[in-house]
Amino acid sequence: MDNNLTPEKPYVIGLDMGGTNSVFGIVDSRGTIKSQTVISTKAYPDVNDYVHAAVEALQPALDAVGGIEKVRGMGIGAPNGNYYTGNIENAANLLWKGIVPIAELFSKALGIPCHVTNDANAAAMGEMTYGVARGMKNFIMITLGTGVGSGIVCDGKVVYGSDGFAGELGHVIVDHTPEARTCGCGRKGCLETYCSATGVARTAREVMAKSTVESKLRSLAPEKITSYDVFCAAEEGDEVAKEIFERTGYILGAACADFAAFNSPEAFVFFGGLTKAGHWIMDPIRRGYEENVLFLYRGKAKLLVSALNGSEAAVLGASALGWE
Amino acid sequence: MDNNLTPEKPYVIGLDMGGTNSVFGIVDSRGTIKSQTVISTKAYPDVNDYVHAAVEALQPALDAVGGIEKVRGMGIGAPNGNYYTGNIENAANLLWKGIVPIAELFSKALGIPCHVTNDANAAAMGEMTYGVARGMKNFIMITLGTGVGSGIVCDGKVVYGSDGFAGELGHVIVDHTPEARTCGCGRKGCLETYCSATGVARTAREVMAKSTVESKLRSLAPEKITSYDVFCAAEEGDEVAKEIFERTGYILGAACADFAAFNSPEAFVFFGGLTKAGHWIMDPIRRGYEENVLFLYRGKAKLLVSALNGSEAAVLGASALGWE
Repeated sequence: MDNNLTPEKPYVIGLDMGGTNSVFGIVDSRGTIKSQTVISTKAYPDVNDYVHAAVEALQPALDAVGGIEKVRGMGIGAPNGNYYTGNIENAANLLWKGIVPIAELFSKALGIPCHVTNDANAAAMGEMTYGVARGMKNFIMITLGTGVGSGIVCDGKVVYGSDGFAGELGHVIVDHTPEARTCGCGRKGCLETYCSATGVARTAREVMAKSTVESKLRSLAPEKITSYDVFCAAEEGDEVAKEIFERTGYILGAACADFAAFNSPEAFVFFGGLTKAGHWIMDPIRRGYEENVLFLYRGKAKLLVSALNGSEAAVLGASALGWE
Repeated sequence: MDNNLTPEKPYVIGLDMGGTNSVFGIVDSRGTIKSQTVISTKAYPDVNDYVHAAVEALQPALDAVGGIEKVRGMGIGAPNGNYYTGNIENAANLLWKGIVPIAELFSKALGIPCHVTNDANAAAMGEMTYGVARGMKNFIMITLGTGVGSGIVCDGKVVYGSDGFAGELGHVIVDHTPEARTCGCGRKGCLETYCSATGVARTAREVMAKSTVESKLRSLAPEKITSYDVFCAAEEGDEVAKEIFERTGYILGAACADFAAFNSPEAFVFFGGLTKAGHWIMDPIRRGYEENVLFLYRGKAKLLVSALNGSEAAVLGASALGWE
């Protein structure tokens, strides 16, 4: 960020846009969220009405910091957000179909620069601006949620590639065998099928089916097992739970070992529910990484967990684009 | 390159440093090599003597273009060349052990800026400056030789990563099964074990061992089969030869499909002996790529063969760094 301008325009707006709700935050340069404003995303079938409603809802929060003239810019983290075009492109879980020029709409409505990207890239920006990747120029953000997302930073900049859609490491194929898991993308063996929330539940079913070892997890509906259930069981010494994290973490660590060959990162930053399992997941990630990484990169990259507050991280990540 | 300076300093020096010989070229901005000078690399156990001998040998060629003051800079493609430090670091096939400050030595001896990188990154610079990647900002160079090397370009710049050693895609693991091939790096299943010169020979042995189909290749010493032998056989309709290219190309194409998830490139540029097999290798590469790439990237990246003359490409690639 350009510090010359910060005193006059000390804030940015971050928008974390989900299919259900949109959370707006007014954020200062230290990553303190001054206020949050929430509106429904799905209540507005017309995106123009949505933007109008958002600006109206934001007004009290803007007044409280001295008005829009104190705001440097706005950043949006949105599904299928394209940094280059400023558009949301064919997002499956939004009401607005096709191409939505969201950056332009907000930029016109608020009179400030506005950038958009997807949530994993926004998370990478957030870590670089306010989080554990501050000062880093080369790192890889891995977001572990419903899917597995990634944001890749080379030479201090998020990699957007030729079309704005770079950095989909959740869809790197880690299993080329016929037994590989089917993925929502239509292919088989994607990293996401092992390390996402549903991937963990699939691994849970697999591990339980293959053994007869007793486990607390057997009392739960198999398709609803979450990484938190597995964590609670592991904490109580449940062997099946430990095995689930062992497999999940090792696959993720081995995949990251391959990713290191791209940009030789200073760090991998992991974010999302799965990271709450602490050492149960991080130890096998480290093992998978160290056992599979090329000697050239061994011992170089830190494997870090995001320190941003989960519920605020998405807004902070989006807001980081507002400083650009 | 900065065109303001080109008229006054219209040339660069490119050095392709191998374990045996060093080839210097004086190159103009169109990629025309005005002259080439060759000295022995291994004749100089002391790198200072090497640099001295090089400068002396270059003098006539420099005089012919109007002297060193007509030269903008020098670029070196060398094994284990590190762009950040300007050093050659622990190169296995050079006499000079440990850390060699090669860029500094040439820069002082010639009085011009000097950069160094490894040969695959130099090849990427060469394609971007004079070759098929001119005007591209995001592409991936794949060099197919004794090993498999790569140079990754994001946003118009070669990715060097945190330590200068980014872009070792030949060591991405493409086979995680117990049957995976052992690699010189000490691990198993690296792309290089399938798509390098020795990888092709290994595949030849494997294909021949598994079938009894007649083949001209059976008359050759199995460990000496080159991609050129396989090409000649394929041209004559040899089914075994076709199968070798089919397997090699498909694995390479499928690997590139994963690489696309990193920087969504405009193109992959293939360089090296294997590409001389033309459609026999490029068709399966394309098939492997299209059948495995994520829908988001489908039909976007061009799969290109370097158009730089093989024997000149390394010098041109190195020289491209001289414009920086």
